[in-house]
Amino acid sequence: MTQTGLRIPPAIWRGQAADILSAWGLPPDHAATTADVLTEADLMGIESHGLAMLSLYERQIQEGGANPQPEIRIVHDHAAVALIDADGGFGQTPSMLATQMAGERAETFGIAAVAIRNSNHYGAAGIYARRLAERGLIGWSTSSVWRSAIVPTGGVEPRLGTNPIAFAAPCAGQRPFLLDMATSTAAIGKLKLAERAEKSIPAGWALDRQGRPQLDPAAALLDTLLVPLGGHKGYGLATMVEILSSTLSGAAMTPLRGTPAGRHDVGHFVMAIDPALLRGSRKAFEDDMAQMMDALRATPCFDESVPVMVAGDPEYRREDERKAQGIPLPAKLGRQLRDVCERAGVPFVFEEEAVPG
Amino acid sequence: MTQTGLRIPPAIWRGQAADILSAWGLPPDHAATTADVLTEADLMGIESHGLAMLSLYERQIQEGGANPQPEIRIVHDHAAVALIDADGGFGQTPSMLATQMAGERAETFGIAAVAIRNSNHYGAAGIYARRLAERGLIGWSTSSVWRSAIVPTGGVEPRLGTNPIAFAAPCAGQRPFLLDMATSTAAIGKLKLAERAEKSIPAGWALDRQGRPQLDPAAALLDTLLVPLGGHKGYGLATMVEILSSTLSGAAMTPLRGTPAGRHDVGHFVMAIDPALLRGSRKAFEDDMAQMMDALRATPCFDESVPVMVAGDPEYRREDERKAQGIPLPAKLGRQLRDVCERAGVPFVFEEEAVPG
Repeated sequence: MTQTGLRIPPAIWRGQAADILSAWGLPPDHAATTADVLTEADLMGIESHGLAMLSLYERQIQEGGANPQPEIRIVHDHAAVALIDADGGFGQTPSMLATQMAGERAETFGIAAVAIRNSNHYGAAGIYARRLAERGLIGWSTSSVWRSAIVPTGGVEPRLGTNPIAFAAPCAGQRPFLLDMATSTAAIGKLKLAERAEKSIPAGWALDRQGRPQLDPAAALLDTLLVPLGGHKGYGLATMVEILSSTLSGAAMTPLRGTPAGRHDVGHFVMAIDPALLRGSRKAFEDDMAQMMDALRATPCFDESVPVMVAGDPEYRREDERKAQGIPLPAKLGRQLRDVCERAGVPFVFEEEAVPG
Repeated sequence: MTQTGLRIPPAIWRGQAADILSAWGLPPDHAATTADVLTEADLMGIESHGLAMLSLYERQIQEGGANPQPEIRIVHDHAAVALIDADGGFGQTPSMLATQMAGERAETFGIAAVAIRNSNHYGAAGIYARRLAERGLIGWSTSSVWRSAIVPTGGVEPRLGTNPIAFAAPCAGQRPFLLDMATSTAAIGKLKLAERAEKSIPAGWALDRQGRPQLDPAAALLDTLLVPLGGHKGYGLATMVEILSSTLSGAAMTPLRGTPAGRHDVGHFVMAIDPALLRGSRKAFEDDMAQMMDALRATPCFDESVPVMVAGDPEYRREDERKAQGIPLPAKLGRQLRDVCERAGVPFVFEEEAVPG
């Protein structure tokens, strides 16, 4: 991606997002939470779920797909489970509420789950799981996705979104294990990279309209017929995510959507487990976690310059670097955000606040 | 696989297994539960987890890896979570207890989880999830595996078992959605099929000792360097299963095992969610499930003679056929079971009880 050469301090990055969201009419606490979650994705290098989403969010508000001033309600509430209606708003605020509720209840009952319906894009799935792990809990988060992309095995049309799974667990003296993955073989972002590099993509990433491997990234992006992770198993996992996120919450189920119109009715699912209550010792669990993570990293590897990692390692490394050096501003994102700011009547502050990249 | 041409009625199949297990000293209820779970795998066509396991189980008892007369104990118990110590026995009996406990508690608290440590092989993971779905709950089951097989991405040695994930959910008027998958790209059984057929295996299933694709199934079976499902995402999923099954329960963690000796200390994890309590209506959930499963099956497909299925469809079809026609007896399994029976002092009844295949 062409870079501007500018790097933006994280607080400025977050503030720009919060200003835009507030200008759209989001209540201050919603704007703050949404800006936090978007910024955290950019810090971790998950740029597809960061401020790059604001152009889409703007359009969704304009088209009536997203409600900037939702009344978030707890619809059902029973012991270790609850259901939230997000009233058509963006997913970050109700999902952080669900994360908080699931955490508190797991600390009471040992395990807890909160589902959300009538929501929208919630950013990077891993952030909710990570919050729970930072609290000493095992965290899980999944979401349905508004747009179909994954083709059921044997089919020639997409019927499920890229339905992400996130899972995190705390480690003594280390940052949490943090898995955050789409259930497609390749992320949309990888197709875009191949298109820009004018390279063909491997068989097994996408299909053409006859069900054959699609090797042209531009055509793959146009048709969006993504192969589920590793074939039929990924199809099963994507369906599992759909069940937990949309069927369980009563949200719209992606395989049954017609042409998306009106509110998107995306569903999410957040779960927490307290190892202190299940195993009887938080310390024993976290010590074992750290030992196992170290054992995995110590696996003999075929290229000594590329040691084995565990999920979360690359994202934490990028986050450390970006917290210290600022978040790099791609040229295209800079132009998009300038336009978004102009339409929202908000000053675009990245140029004067940037540090040398 | 060479067939004897014999088919065995399921009750005889199960009875043969129960007789062998009882002769080894398992208490009657343990023998019954273990025989039930093994037979259900054979009915569903998951032969690798059926009576074919009895030769291994026999050796594990002889070598001290499995305790035929365990005292199963509930070690911790708190509201919606519990921890079971299986005392070194086979995994089926404590896992059915965990399934029962998780089901009851989910019906009280909305969600519940039970972990098991100090266990052994528990058969097909899907059977526990299926029991919960047949009760109207969402079911989940995972297990660690005694022997390492999956290579962490970038590594050249296995550090994780084929760590299965099973997930099931009830559907109105249909059998449950039932996903049961190893987190390796290909199952060991698929390597064996290729070896017998003298065919090479695709790149992406296994590695050689230099980290390159291994195309020879015999060498792949010898080295057991399996590629995780779809690459690094499957490595993350296998690690997640290890955390839930072994780290959370305090069982032996596969990446830290030395040469396996003595008891195997395998861990399992069973979870249940009650949609009636979370969503507020069991009927709405099950009706939506059925509608979504039908929509997935109706996906336009590239070969009209091979319609799209959902997870569980092939297994239920085999189960129906085998319940009606009997379970086919492969020649090799017949010889193995005859030998096991002889050593256990139990009559081998398959020949006189068989029906024409």
